[in-house]
Amino acid sequence: MRAAYLFGAGDIRVVDAPDPSIQLPTDALVRVTRACVCGSDLHPHHSAPPSPAGHSIGHEFIGVVEGVGADVRTLAAGDFVIAPFAVSCGECEFCRAGLHTSCVRGGFWNDDRLGTGGGQAEAVRVPFADGTLVKVPGVTAGADEPLLASLLTLSDVYGTGWHAAVRGRVTAGSTVTVIGDGAVGLLAVLSARQLGAERIVLMGRHRARTDLGREYGATDVVAARGEEGIAAVRDLTGGGSPIVLEAVGHLPAYQQAVGVVRPGGVISRVGVPQYEEAPVGFGSLFGGNITLTGGPAPVRAYIEDLLPGVLAGTVEPGRVFDRTVVLEDTPKGYTAMDDREALKVMVRP
Amino acid sequence: MRAAYLFGAGDIRVVDAPDPSIQLPTDALVRVTRACVCGSDLHPHHSAPPSPAGHSIGHEFIGVVEGVGADVRTLAAGDFVIAPFAVSCGECEFCRAGLHTSCVRGGFWNDDRLGTGGGQAEAVRVPFADGTLVKVPGVTAGADEPLLASLLTLSDVYGTGWHAAVRGRVTAGSTVTVIGDGAVGLLAVLSARQLGAERIVLMGRHRARTDLGREYGATDVVAARGEEGIAAVRDLTGGGSPIVLEAVGHLPAYQQAVGVVRPGGVISRVGVPQYEEAPVGFGSLFGGNITLTGGPAPVRAYIEDLLPGVLAGTVEPGRVFDRTVVLEDTPKGYTAMDDREALKVMVRP
Repeated sequence: MRAAYLFGAGDIRVVDAPDPSIQLPTDALVRVTRACVCGSDLHPHHSAPPSPAGHSIGHEFIGVVEGVGADVRTLAAGDFVIAPFAVSCGECEFCRAGLHTSCVRGGFWNDDRLGTGGGQAEAVRVPFADGTLVKVPGVTAGADEPLLASLLTLSDVYGTGWHAAVRGRVTAGSTVTVIGDGAVGLLAVLSARQLGAERIVLMGRHRARTDLGREYGATDVVAARGEEGIAAVRDLTGGGSPIVLEAVGHLPAYQQAVGVVRPGGVISRVGVPQYEEAPVGFGSLFGGNITLTGGPAPVRAYIEDLLPGVLAGTVEPGRVFDRTVVLEDTPKGYTAMDDREALKVMVRP
Repeated sequence: MRAAYLFGAGDIRVVDAPDPSIQLPTDALVRVTRACVCGSDLHPHHSAPPSPAGHSIGHEFIGVVEGVGADVRTLAAGDFVIAPFAVSCGECEFCRAGLHTSCVRGGFWNDDRLGTGGGQAEAVRVPFADGTLVKVPGVTAGADEPLLASLLTLSDVYGTGWHAAVRGRVTAGSTVTVIGDGAVGLLAVLSARQLGAERIVLMGRHRARTDLGREYGATDVVAARGEEGIAAVRDLTGGGSPIVLEAVGHLPAYQQAVGVVRPGGVISRVGVPQYEEAPVGFGSLFGGNITLTGGPAPVRAYIEDLLPGVLAGTVEPGRVFDRTVVLEDTPKGYTAMDDREALKVMVRP
């Protein structure tokens, strides 16, 4: 089959790859209907060391089951499925607690230990298919594009924005600041609004994106960053935001979160940190009793809750996609996102 | 009056100091019945720069009101009071929310801005007396020593241990690991037990202290530190502790907390951090969706809840005091705590 492989920083190519197949009785084989490029795919695209053999890439896809192993109970050939960005067994302590990203048996796509390939491909072998995949009855690969786009966000960015809001304990009447106008930030806005937030300040400086953020529920937009942006948010929120959702992952975004949070407040991070150390002492988190929470979203735990709104069309998270490329043009998708020409790129095999 | 002053690292002396007096109509003047030395007093005692004029010190005391300003409504001369370690107005947004340590008008003892002196003295001027002090009806300065000792812990260490447990969301049946066998750690054990924790692992290596920890409710004691201690706790808790209360404040204790916490768990810090930067990235907090919380305890918010148990004698937090010195011997109290000869030293003016 054809699949996108990363051979090092800036070197992504679509190549002939081995056809995936069922290897374990708990596997499913999924033919990809739509995949996409994630902001977090850009990190290895910027910094991966050269690799002559390359690695497959992509962790968001929806598709149709082509076959299942002997032990798969809940899925059959022909089912339309959403694949979360994490593989999960569905049975361990953490899966039962809704923390599928800490599954003791699972892992991620493009994972050597699990032998999984990436989603930017024609087909994918899915381990622990019963635990990992979510079947969507009544939908086929021929569904209309806006619906496919919204279903695809359930594999990562919508569930990740939702996780930020849930971990930030957004409830009716909350005042929330969202840092980042990428797909996750915008869907954190949508999620906060769904959970009842009244005031949502979106920090972002790309007008087309923040305009979509306003449609998703942002009541204020702050384009300034650093000290100026912090001062603007503190002013808008009368001294700091009780809830801050950080959807970027770079250290300046963390510093911005610390700068805008109100004493006693919470910073919920879902942007994958591109740093290991950060300020947490008296002058940053401790003195004001600030709570720092968040992590990789267990999107598997949220899909059943979020799916009805998507199917009914009452929410349209798929609007974050502003470009589609065919699989062969996946590298162009990376470039468009890198150059900020596209917010989020869909890949059509 | 006589009062302890710190003139630089290792240089604490009891000197003649100006008699405090009522300066604002919201002030009270309190004659100190008992004060004490806090683990956090040892930090400036180790590292304060030389100061020819010196600074008063001490932030925990109980005493009797000698006089009040014209606007004080809830207190009168003769009342027995507990002074929390933070001054709070009782009326601002944060005081009303129970976060008195973030009071917009308040501050701490030995605070140049508020003009407050320290508790290791014969008397103290208390700003915002209605908001700061808690009256204890039926108690006098002549109460028996064990009761005075337990009341004194309500000014800081008991409320701080309680804050750790509350912020860590300890409930009936919880498994909790407490890092540190100082007074705060031991009272975090007591607090976790009061909140219903079933399994309490205490990490500490001073036998007399951990023995008291067992009496307070610790079910297991781990004396090892670093990687060995982490492995022992992970083993005891079947893969990590869902709740970790960090009552030390040094970076190795933070690292230990990160090492023993279970995916999805919470680290609640109340030891004042002696570091500003620490690991918070994918490999420490983020990957496992760990929540980091805590800060200076708003003990003022907890005193009314904790007082009945102290007055009834059903809890004895005052057992953390294992030495008493007269005010003139305060420097000996610092030395005894520094040398780990005493767990916590009471000061009797």
